[in-house]
Amino acid sequence: MKPVCLVMGAGAGIGGNVARRFAREGYHAVLCRRSDQDGMNRLVSLIEADGGTASGYLLNAIEEGSIESRVDAVETDIGPVEVAVYNLGAQIGNRALEDTSHKAFEMGWRLATFGLFRFAQAVCPLMAGRGHGNLLVTSATAAMRGNPGQHSHAAAMGGRRLLCQTLNAEYGPKGIHVAHLVVDGAVDAPDTLGKMLGPERYQEMRESRGDGLMRPDKIADTFWHIAQQHRSVWTHELDLRPFSDSPWWND
Amino acid sequence: MKPVCLVMGAGAGIGGNVARRFAREGYHAVLCRRSDQDGMNRLVSLIEADGGTASGYLLNAIEEGSIESRVDAVETDIGPVEVAVYNLGAQIGNRALEDTSHKAFEMGWRLATFGLFRFAQAVCPLMAGRGHGNLLVTSATAAMRGNPGQHSHAAAMGGRRLLCQTLNAEYGPKGIHVAHLVVDGAVDAPDTLGKMLGPERYQEMRESRGDGLMRPDKIADTFWHIAQQHRSVWTHELDLRPFSDSPWWND
Amino acid sequence: MKPVCLVMGAGAGIGGNVARRFAREGYHAVLCRRSDQDGMNRLVSLIEADGGTASGYLLNAIEEGSIESRVDAVETDIGPVEVAVYNLGAQIGNRALEDTSHKAFEMGWRLATFGLFRFAQAVCPLMAGRGHGNLLVTSATAAMRGNPGQHSHAAAMGGRRLLCQTLNAEYGPKGIHVAHLVVDGAVDAPDTLGKMLGPERYQEMRESRGDGLMRPDKIADTFWHIAQQHRSVWTHELDLRPFSDSPWWND
Amino acid sequence: MKPVCLVMGAGAGIGGNVARRFAREGYHAVLCRRSDQDGMNRLVSLIEADGGTASGYLLNAIEEGSIESRVDAVETDIGPVEVAVYNLGAQIGNRALEDTSHKAFEMGWRLATFGLFRFAQAVCPLMAGRGHGNLLVTSATAAMRGNPGQHSHAAAMGGRRLLCQTLNAEYGPKGIHVAHLVVDGAVDAPDTLGKMLGPERYQEMRESRGDGLMRPDKIADTFWHIAQQHRSVWTHELDLRPFSDSPWWND
Repeated sequence: MKPVCLVMGAGAGIGGNVARRFAREGYHAVLCRRSDQDGMNRLVSLIEADGGTASGYLLNAIEEGSIESRVDAVETDIGPVEVAVYNLGAQIGNRALEDTSHKAFEMGWRLATFGLFRFAQAVCPLMAGRGHGNLLVTSATAAMRGNPGQHSHAAAMGGRRLLCQTLNAEYGPKGIHVAHLVVDGAVDAPDTLGKMLGPERYQEMRESRGDGLMRPDKIADTFWHIAQQHRSVWTHELDLRPFSDSPWWND
Repeated sequence: MKPVCLVMGAGAGIGGNVARRFAREGYHAVLCRRSDQDGMNRLVSLIEADGGTASGYLLNAIEEGSIESRVDAVETDIGPVEVAVYNLGAQIGNRALEDTSHKAFEMGWRLATFGLFRFAQAVCPLMAGRGHGNLLVTSATAAMRGNPGQHSHAAAMGGRRLLCQTLNAEYGPKGIHVAHLVVDGAVDAPDTLGKMLGPERYQEMRESRGDGLMRPDKIADTFWHIAQQHRSVWTHELDLRPFSDSPWWND
Repeated sequence: MKPVCLVMGAGAGIGGNVARRFAREGYHAVLCRRSDQDGMNRLVSLIEADGGTASGYLLNAIEEGSIESRVDAVETDIGPVEVAVYNLGAQIGNRALEDTSHKAFEMGWRLATFGLFRFAQAVCPLMAGRGHGNLLVTSATAAMRGNPGQHSHAAAMGGRRLLCQTLNAEYGPKGIHVAHLVVDGAVDAPDTLGKMLGPERYQEMRESRGDGLMRPDKIADTFWHIAQQHRSVWTHELDLRPFSDSPWWND
Repeated sequence: MKPVCLVMGAGAGIGGNVARRFAREGYHAVLCRRSDQDGMNRLVSLIEADGGTASGYLLNAIEEGSIESRVDAVETDIGPVEVAVYNLGAQIGNRALEDTSHKAFEMGWRLATFGLFRFAQAVCPLMAGRGHGNLLVTSATAAMRGNPGQHSHAAAMGGRRLLCQTLNAEYGPKGIHVAHLVVDGAVDAPDTLGKMLGPERYQEMRESRGDGLMRPDKIADTFWHIAQQHRSVWTHELDLRPFSDSPWWND
C-alpha cells in the first residue's frame, strides 16, 4: 500500500504541483479543493500520465466536518496519510479597516487558522499513533508582519504561524514533522495569478518576469525535501522567494 | 469635557490600574468587564476616592454588537474616546491538541483577535476623524511564539499581534497611536492570579516573589507613557517583564 | 551627591537631549563625545542654564582604555553612574560590498559592538555591586535586518542587539536594567542630519516633514521613562518612529 | 572542469560532510581548516574512496589575506567556486561578562563575522561576474538571541546573520544564492562534540540520544538541497533541529 500525500487546496499552483511531485515519488496523491471538478480531473489525469496514482475530491473546508470526514475516509479507504499539506490561503486583497466586513475577517480565520487547526486535529493524532508523519503548511509574509489593508489576512496568517509552532512543539517529539513554509513572492499559478490578471496580462507577466515569478513545480521540490529530512535535522520554518525580489524585511 | 479612557477588560489587574492611572491624570475612565458588578463598583469608588471620575459597564465582548454599542454610547453620552485599551486575554491554560475543543479554539479567537478587530473598527475611524487617539493593546508572549498546549491562545494572540501591525500601518499616518505591549511574566492581579491560586498560595507567592511579580500599577505607568509619547516618536511594540525573569527567547 | 547619567555620544541629537533631560530631573550629566569642544561646552551651559549640573569630556571611544578610564574617573571624582547611555552610532551610508574596506567594516564593529561591550564591562559590575543601575542603548533598524550596502552597519548593529540580550539576561537578575531602543526614522539633529544636509536643506526638511522628523527631546522622554520603570516591569526592547513613517517591516 | 565546492571549516562534522556530499554529486571539494593535517587527509581520502575528488589546505582564517589568497588560488588552479560554504564557528562556552577578555570578544567577531565578510568579498564578485553561485553559511541560535555568558558568541553571530541579509539583498539579484542555516541542536561531530566530551561520554551520548543528536551527513542533505533550489524559489533562512528538541523560542 502506497503512503498517502493529502493536499488541502490542490489547484494548479503549489498544491497541485506538490501532489504531483509526491505522486512521482511513489505516494498516492489525494487532491482536495473547493470547486472546479474539471480542473481536478485534469490534475488526476496528469499524475496518472506520469505513472502515478491520485484521487480527487471537492471539499468546502469551511463546512463543519468536511475536513475531518475526508481524512477519515482517506485513512479507511486509501491508506495512512504520511504527508498532510495545508495549502489553503485566505488573501482577499487589500481592504481598509472600514471596508473589512465581520464576515470577511471571520472567513480569513476560518480558512487560514481554524481550518489548519481542524486538519491538524484530524491527522496529527493518527500520525502520532504511527510515530511518524509530516504536516507541511504553505504560508505567506502576512504571517510575519501586517501591512495596511491586510487586517483579515494578517490576523489569520499570524495565527497560523503560531499555531504551527504549537503543533511543532507538541508533535515534534512524537515524530511528526511540522513545517511552516513562507512563500514571499508571486507564484506562477494559472488558477490564482492567472485568473486575477486574465490570460493576456498573465502571459505578459510570465515573459517579463521570467524567474522572478516563483515556479510552483520548483516550490514542490522544497516541500519534498522537507518531508524527506532525517528526523535528527528537521526544519520548522523557511522562506522562499525569487532571486530578484527583496525579502519582506528590506526597504 | 474630559477626554475618555475606555478600558475593555477592567478587572483588578492591568485594566483597572490603567483606568485608575488615566483617571488620576484627568481622563474620565470607562470600565468594561464581563461580570462582577461589585468589583467594578469598588473600582469606580476607588477612582472617585482619588478625585477622579469613572463609569462602569458589564459587557460580554463575545456578544454581537456589545463592543460597538458601548463605544457609541460612550462617545454620545460621555465624550470622545482618546485612549482605547484592549485588555481582554484568552489564556485557558495548557491543553493538548486533542483536548482543545472547536469551541475553545474559536473562543480564543473571538476574545483575543476578533474582539480587538471590532473594537478597532468602532474607535479608529472616530479617532481618525479627530486626527488623534490611542489604541493600547495588552498582549502576551503567546503573541510571539507558540508553546505546547497553547493552540487556542497562541493562534489568537499571534493573530492579535499582526492585526496591531495592520492597524498601526493604516492608522498611524492618520494620527492614531497603536501599541502592542507584551506582558511577559506573572502579574500581581487578585482577579486572575489570585483566583487561580487561592488566597493563601497567592499571598505566599506575593511574599516569595516580591518584585518578581509584575505590579499592575507599574505596568499602568508604561501605558500612560506610551499614550503621552509625542507623535514624532511613537513606540509600536515593547515588552515588559520582571527584572528577575528570563525573557521568553532565553533558555 | 547626585546620581550620574553618563552619555557616550552626546551631540546635539539624542545623546545631548537625554543628558539634558536627566540633568533636569536631578542627575549630574556627564557628556562624552569625540570632538567639538565648543559644542560640548554649549551643551554644558545649556544644562546649567536649566539649573542642572554637567561635565563634558572629549573621548575617542575607539582608543584603548578611553571608555574604561572615563568611567573610573567619573565614579571616583563625580559619583556613581546610575544611568549609562550608549549612543554611539556607526552608520557610514550605503556602500557596496566591494567598496566596503576592511577598515570600514572593522570600524563599525569597534564603535557599535565592541565599544558597547567595553562600556558594559566598565559599568555593569559596578552597578551590580550596588544592586541597581541602567544601561540604555540607542539602536537602529540595522540591528533588526540587513539592507543592501549596510554590510558594516548591519553586522555591527545586529551584534549590538544580541549583546544587549546577553547583558540583559546576565545583569537583569542583578538589578541592572538593560534596554535596546530602536530608532526607526530620521532624527531632527543638527550635528548629524543637519551636517549631512547643510543648513538650507536641513531647514527645508524640518519644515516639510514637521512631526515626521523625530524630535530628540521627545526621544529623551522615553529614555527617561525606561530608566524609571519599576523593576517588576522592565522593558528590554522597544521601537520609536514618527507617526507618518512605515515601520521597517512594512512594504 | 568540475565546479568547486569550497568549505571554510571542514572538520569531521558539518563542513566535512557537506564537502563529501557535494563531491559525490560531481563537485571538486576544497577543504580548509585551521589544523590537523591528518584529519584533513583522511577526509580527502574518504572523498576519493567515494569516487570523488578533493583538495585540502590548512588555513588560519584570522590571518590577514589567508582566505583571500586561498580563494584566488582555487579559482586559478582548480576552477570556479560554485558553492562557498562558511562553516567557522566561534562558540567558546559560557563566560560571564567580567570573564570575557577583549581578546575573546574580538576573536568571536574575527571568526564569525569579519571572516565571513572577507570570504564574501573574495567570492561574491567572482560569482556575480558569472551570474550564479551559492554562499551557504552555517549558523547557530546565538544568531537569533543572546543567552547569559554568550557575549562574544551572540554579538558575533548576530552580526553574521544580518551580514547574510545584506549579502542576500545585494547579491541575490545578481544570481548569488546566500543562505543562513541555523543549526539549533547538538551535532554528532567527533571533532567538536567528541573532543569536548571525550571518547567514552561521547559514545554514551550517541547511544542515549539517538536521533536527538543531529547527524551531519543529514545536515549536508539540506545544504545540498538549498544549493539546488531553482532561482525562482530560493530560501534565505531556515532552522534545523532534532525532532526531540524544543526550538530556542519555546520554554
